[in-house]
Amino acid sequence: MAKQKSDTIMDKVVSLCKRKGFIFQSSEIYGGLNSCYDYGPLGIELKRNIKDFWWKHMVQFRADIEGLDASILMHPRIWEASGHVAGFTDPLVDCKKCKQRFRADHVEEPGVCPACGGELTDERQFNLMFKTFMGPVEEQANVVYLRPETAQGIYVNFLNVLQSSRQKVPYGIAQIGKAFRNEITPGNFIFRTREFEQMEMQFFVKPDTATEWFEYWKQQRMEYYVKLGITKEKLAFHQHGPDELAHYAADAFDIEYQFPFGNMELEGIHNRTNFDLSRHQEYSGKDLSYFDDQTRERFVPYIIETSAGCDRTLLTCLVDAYEEEQLENDVRTVLHLAPEIAPVKAAVFPLVKRDGMPELAMKLIDELRPHFNVFYDHGGAIGRRYRRMDEVGTPFCLTVDSESLENQTVTIRERDSMQQERIAIDTVRKYLEDRITVRP
Amino acid sequence: MAKQKSDTIMDKVVSLCKRKGFIFQSSEIYGGLNSCYDYGPLGIELKRNIKDFWWKHMVQFRADIEGLDASILMHPRIWEASGHVAGFTDPLVDCKKCKQRFRADHVEEPGVCPACGGELTDERQFNLMFKTFMGPVEEQANVVYLRPETAQGIYVNFLNVLQSSRQKVPYGIAQIGKAFRNEITPGNFIFRTREFEQMEMQFFVKPDTATEWFEYWKQQRMEYYVKLGITKEKLAFHQHGPDELAHYAADAFDIEYQFPFGNMELEGIHNRTNFDLSRHQEYSGKDLSYFDDQTRERFVPYIIETSAGCDRTLLTCLVDAYEEEQLENDVRTVLHLAPEIAPVKAAVFPLVKRDGMPELAMKLIDELRPHFNVFYDHGGAIGRRYRRMDEVGTPFCLTVDSESLENQTVTIRERDSMQQERIAIDTVRKYLEDRITVRP
Repeated sequence: MAKQKSDTIMDKVVSLCKRKGFIFQSSEIYGGLNSCYDYGPLGIELKRNIKDFWWKHMVQFRADIEGLDASILMHPRIWEASGHVAGFTDPLVDCKKCKQRFRADHVEEPGVCPACGGELTDERQFNLMFKTFMGPVEEQANVVYLRPETAQGIYVNFLNVLQSSRQKVPYGIAQIGKAFRNEITPGNFIFRTREFEQMEMQFFVKPDTATEWFEYWKQQRMEYYVKLGITKEKLAFHQHGPDELAHYAADAFDIEYQFPFGNMELEGIHNRTNFDLSRHQEYSGKDLSYFDDQTRERFVPYIIETSAGCDRTLLTCLVDAYEEEQLENDVRTVLHLAPEIAPVKAAVFPLVKRDGMPELAMKLIDELRPHFNVFYDHGGAIGRRYRRMDEVGTPFCLTVDSESLENQTVTIRERDSMQQERIAIDTVRKYLEDRITVRP
Repeated sequence: MAKQKSDTIMDKVVSLCKRKGFIFQSSEIYGGLNSCYDYGPLGIELKRNIKDFWWKHMVQFRADIEGLDASILMHPRIWEASGHVAGFTDPLVDCKKCKQRFRADHVEEPGVCPACGGELTDERQFNLMFKTFMGPVEEQANVVYLRPETAQGIYVNFLNVLQSSRQKVPYGIAQIGKAFRNEITPGNFIFRTREFEQMEMQFFVKPDTATEWFEYWKQQRMEYYVKLGITKEKLAFHQHGPDELAHYAADAFDIEYQFPFGNMELEGIHNRTNFDLSRHQEYSGKDLSYFDDQTRERFVPYIIETSAGCDRTLLTCLVDAYEEEQLENDVRTVLHLAPEIAPVKAAVFPLVKRDGMPELAMKLIDELRPHFNVFYDHGGAIGRRYRRMDEVGTPFCLTVDSESLENQTVTIRERDSMQQERIAIDTVRKYLEDRITVRP
């Protein structure tokens, strides 16, 4: 395994993604749009399942977290309060000779162009927020930003959610949604892109309980990735040192995954103190403190944040699941995706295209379709059909053969072990349900 | 019913949305951002269910439609090919006196300001696409647009999906995603907003079968809204006359709903001819024709489009479901949402907060939670608890009482009829599943 997952594995995953319809370059027929990607038929199913897995663990399975879906365009004052207008910047330098532009902190020799050796300008700060204008006039008063994170949409709704739900602190608000950053150097396929999807949860707590909740969420979130099927040994915590800590954070841990291109952040868990609500209180003039009717105390809640990238989670699932497995006389490509998130849950094959097998297979498909994403295939040798399903991570293949016509059974083949067993057709639905349902 | 659903029903729905956590004004603590809205805890569950209902009907239940999720930022040439750069405009006029700006076609007396009576300027065209800049330099070469519709992301992926899936024409591609239009006059709550979510399906067909498929999709889509629980009598087709037809369309029908503010479009079904693929073929230089290996013909497919608004579907569900029902001695507010899309599927109540009832209720909640969004409530009289659930559309309430402790049964109360029956606890899951599963 270790040897096989060499530096070429990314190329193989990227190639599989395009060939099988997981991920395409955006606007490909127009030469592509740098750092934007489209999810194809299998990619969107995988993404939907990952988002659903997160939502179930963070919202549905818990009584103390509420969901939210704030708009991408928000009031521009929010980004002043958050510090993004003043400080969400990268330092840039230009080459005076070849006119190329670089991140100053990525230039190895100060003042010298990495491309042509020419002289570089002094650095200047470049804000990473995309801006646009709302209303018909392009003037400063009408500037709005594409949100660079979903978190602020949660903070400004702290009171709305508190008043409309029946929650008390400690409680959380969870959100999945798009965010946009005008990165100078995006890269590593869908790992860092200019348009991306976040899955963020903000947990509001009494200040003196923040450390305890921070530890709790660290453990919860690490366990989550293991449940998602990611290899435990490739996951690790990385604590931010004093020089890495964001201005709002008292403590921060990343959950990192060992990608082929290095150990990279999958998710950040942050103790953001009362920075966020205090700032929005100051900038909006609204009282965002909380009155605890048990202790008779009033306080501005601390926030423990768990901030995950949806696209990079998906990339992790693909990279971690990918294997070119050496068989006795053959190599098979297989995606060992957790059954809960696999794009197709089961394929149904008639062994041959006659004797009523296709009809029985279609009947089974029709029974399963309301409950699962299933796929019918009658093309080619059965072995090839299995391999096509292995390659896209389908955990179960059901084959209708001549015995099926006699006794209403099918063979069910499991992707990873390639073991087959015979089960009654009327137990298939429960068999699948037991193995693919997302559970707490 | 007719009398009750008067012009004030919108106010009541808007008020319910805020009070119960369906929908909040975006950036409310900062005075709000015009025409942008946030979905609260119940709103996002309803929206998720509506999107899931659409996805199941348009993708999962069908073998001939594939899903897609294209990025919001796309190559700017796409909007030249589509005609949006040149033609996606509204005519605007300014008042020379009071400086206010109006849509020219909304001014009743030509040349005269509706606000102050001042003189208006000549009209000029204003493009409705939001634009921004990708990369560090704000110059024309770096302009990108926030997509004003999701459809183009499908057209430019026609070949990618064809090659990676095993589809043949006729087949469709379906997508749910955000789109943005810099409307001058948004309004009617979430009916017309600047940021909104579309659910679009593009069906690629052989040109001489387009009329037949157009009729098929008209019927399918009308039936869909009835399945979604919308009152059939409030739905109607509206055919576009020659003066309403878009430049790309050979035929177009809207499905309209009778809102309190008028008959308004919920969805458009369009025969777009081969306009889209021909234009992208011309602008990208890529061959987008299709070779039919059965008839040995090559053609540029016609497209039948079904384009629905997610937010306005959600508004329709709320408005259509809202009732203030006159009971014998009381009025109850109830949302008659279809159980498949109701935000909370079931509430579980201990009749009183003692004798082990809360424990048994929590045990039931834990059993149901992996499968459904459920809600536990022990606060207040049982009647009040029922009413709170009626108001947010929860179809079933389960009450644990003293008999439950003896024989492991609960009462189950149905929202619309208010009828109760007693069922065994170990059948509750199946009882709910039978009534809330989305079916073809």
